[in-house]
Amino acid sequence: MPKRDYLDDPNAPAPNSLVVAVGAVVRNADGAILLIKRGDNGLWALPGGAQDLGESTTDAVVREVREETGLQGRVAGLVGIYSNPGHVIAYDDGEVRQEFSVVFRVDAMGGEVRPSTESVNVEWVTPDRVPDLDIHPSMRLRIEHGLADLPTPYLC
Amino acid sequence: MPKRDYLDDPNAPAPNSLVVAVGAVVRNADGAILLIKRGDNGLWALPGGAQDLGESTTDAVVREVREETGLQGRVAGLVGIYSNPGHVIAYDDGEVRQEFSVVFRVDAMGGEVRPSTESVNVEWVTPDRVPDLDIHPSMRLRIEHGLADLPTPYLC
Repeated sequence: MPKRDYLDDPNAPAPNSLVVAVGAVVRNADGAILLIKRGDNGLWALPGGAQDLGESTTDAVVREVREETGLQGRVAGLVGIYSNPGHVIAYDDGEVRQEFSVVFRVDAMGGEVRPSTESVNVEWVTPDRVPDLDIHPSMRLRIEHGLADLPTPYLC
Repeated sequence: MPKRDYLDDPNAPAPNSLVVAVGAVVRNADGAILLIKRGDNGLWALPGGAQDLGESTTDAVVREVREETGLQGRVAGLVGIYSNPGHVIAYDDGEVRQEFSVVFRVDAMGGEVRPSTESVNVEWVTPDRVPDLDIHPSMRLRIEHGLADLPTPYLC
């Protein structure tokens, strides 16, 4: 479980870890975006998580969508690569992880939306509701890019 | 130094590491592509290497281009994300690293091409010469995508 999130904070500890994480922008026919309420910190977020050894990055995002939301997905494109070195997450075991996340556009192909142990709530959220939800700034940036449908992937 | 490269080999060892690496497709006005001959294995490759802690992924590719070729670059786009779990590299110290590489299109903005300790040769290579060079298949795929100028990033 994350101990603390630091964003552009001069007092942040130095990172000692870089992990490939993935996120999914899934939208329905009405333009709503699929968000989860995370079990670990209570914040709303895109479905996603760390890539496992033995799978590709696209396999990882399809697996995370299935595990966290119940939906079967198919990768449809890339929203961006997020690697701001000013965003680090400190964990209880001493790991200080620097942000690295690949966010894909994923089409929902089937399945039924349901929560999981990692996602206590899973909802289709209309874009007008997004500003009112409790969302970490680094995640809000990704959601805004997903809703904006950028012409080229965001790269940093 | 890599001990051995395995590609879709049923006898490959199981991976125990995933490291963010970057590569650069840099082309000149004549359409030639910038390739280096690696000091560690003698193969031709795109300039690139592992992302360091404290830098973004785009910072990393600009740094690697400068270190390995002498050129100052600017990120212009994304060629693809390469994460074939069937490609692993075993090292002498027991690390078995699974492929994970982000390949960017990089514009050369200045500087003079020169070799380095990691790149014993640095050359602008015309596309017709690429098939004759000794290049690992996973790297050849990236070079071909860079030369083909794919309409959307390659994702796996």
